[in-house]
Amino acid sequence: MNPLLLLDYSGIAVFAATGALAASRKELDLIGFIFLAGITGMGGGTLRDLIIDAPVFWILNPTYIVICALVAVLVFFTAPMVEYRYRLLLWFDAVGLAAYSVLGAAKGLVASGSATVALVTGILTATFGGVLRDVVAGEPSVLMRPEVYVSAALVGAAVFTGMDIAGVDGTIAALVAFAAAFLVRGGAIRYGWT
Amino acid sequence: MNPLLLLDYSGIAVFAATGALAASRKELDLIGFIFLAGITGMGGGTLRDLIIDAPVFWILNPTYIVICALVAVLVFFTAPMVEYRYRLLLWFDAVGLAAYSVLGAAKGLVASGSATVALVTGILTATFGGVLRDVVAGEPSVLMRPEVYVSAALVGAAVFTGMDIAGVDGTIAALVAFAAAFLVRGGAIRYGWT
Amino acid sequence: MNPLLLLDYSGIAVFAATGALAASRKELDLIGFIFLAGITGMGGGTLRDLIIDAPVFWILNPTYIVICALVAVLVFFTAPMVEYRYRLLLWFDAVGLAAYSVLGAAKGLVASGSATVALVTGILTATFGGVLRDVVAGEPSVLMRPEVYVSAALVGAAVFTGMDIAGVDGTIAALVAFAAAFLVRGGAIRYGWT
Repeated sequence: MNPLLLLDYSGIAVFAATGALAASRKELDLIGFIFLAGITGMGGGTLRDLIIDAPVFWILNPTYIVICALVAVLVFFTAPMVEYRYRLLLWFDAVGLAAYSVLGAAKGLVASGSATVALVTGILTATFGGVLRDVVAGEPSVLMRPEVYVSAALVGAAVFTGMDIAGVDGTIAALVAFAAAFLVRGGAIRYGWT
Repeated sequence: MNPLLLLDYSGIAVFAATGALAASRKELDLIGFIFLAGITGMGGGTLRDLIIDAPVFWILNPTYIVICALVAVLVFFTAPMVEYRYRLLLWFDAVGLAAYSVLGAAKGLVASGSATVALVTGILTATFGGVLRDVVAGEPSVLMRPEVYVSAALVGAAVFTGMDIAGVDGTIAALVAFAAAFLVRGGAIRYGWT
Repeated sequence: MNPLLLLDYSGIAVFAATGALAASRKELDLIGFIFLAGITGMGGGTLRDLIIDAPVFWILNPTYIVICALVAVLVFFTAPMVEYRYRLLLWFDAVGLAAYSVLGAAKGLVASGSATVALVTGILTATFGGVLRDVVAGEPSVLMRPEVYVSAALVGAAVFTGMDIAGVDGTIAALVAFAAAFLVRGGAIRYGWT
């Protein structure tokens, strides 16, 4: 499987899970879970596609919608058993952030040819789903938390863009950049890096 | 008059009225009424058109803008006489939700040919104007209320999409789907369905 | 230098500064400053370009991204010395509001040929960056403040559109409309016009 596609499906699934966990904290019904899972999982990529003037990815391939719905159903039935739902949300969010920072940079770079644009589309893709989730759920934005957040997305986007421009193989660049972004955000969650 | 067009004008007018009622609760000036009426009335359809890559409807036909402004002026002068403004907002919102869930599904189905996509565009069109209204007005999102909300939009989108695929005449499908969505949301408001 | 381009760079720089000032009030890190500066500076114009189906301006010309980042860095190092950061934010916001109401109307008029559409794109371009800033930073929307706000954007858009349709030279129309919008919003901040 193409590693970018794997990042894509993983990113959407974990972001969808964070939306469903937010729905669980708000005690919504099943459809509310699916709704929040969908806007969180697909929001960042939708904004990215609109901005780079590409067809919206889930219109081309409705499988993404089904993934979000399945994840939401799964969380709906298992979340009551989870003790630390917000903590879990933060860790899933970190995986999604890392995956989407790379994917957003890759698509922005192809569409514009500009490294600067790639950094912006990487950051936007990684953060916008979470912003939508927090705004709709009426929670304080995860971006306003004291620990490092947007910086981790920047690291993922910058490492990928730099390695890609340097001619490194796309698969390796994607995996290294994903790991770098996840380490930064993970460290922030675990050790409170600010 | 084309029934979809009728749903469209009704939907925009009642959503615009909910925006103006929110402006009234915030004691804004007349331009603030028009602004909130406009983003509530036209926000959902704008997002839908961007996503399905259609020209934005109110750029093609500025009549929609005029409808929102007229509704805002009407509410500006009559709202102080209304005793239960939030209750009225909820009922208008229910009519708009029902109308836009059908319309959004219809446009998404035509644009993508996918029933799954049609459900998503139906829900997004029906909910996004209200989300914008609540976010800008700084009110808790109507989607986070305990009673059924997104589910009603799903019912409208699903009934229309199902009947359309089954070959039912578009006018009949639209009216039945509108009625179904309105009954679900109306029951939720009236009897507190959760 | 083309006066519309000058309005454009000024508008983006002062809006970016308001985003950075909001980041300063939230005690974010440098990347948080750049992020909030970017979405505030470029948010309104991005929405405008999506709606009129133009290529997004900062994809075509990444200089805009660099301007936002530089402004954010500047504010990051100087903001601690500023005593009245919210007051300064409001005045910068007024300059950006005036500049973008004109620019948004000009682009909307060219794209649609409709004066009504031009008023809407003028207002949206002028207000949306600030809405994003306030939503992400979790502050009450500047649009909900008691003094005149959206009306000032309407004045800028209407004066420019009226003069342009009347055949007045574009440079003069832009400067007069900018001054009119700034006077209205400035009066609102200084004298509490409601």
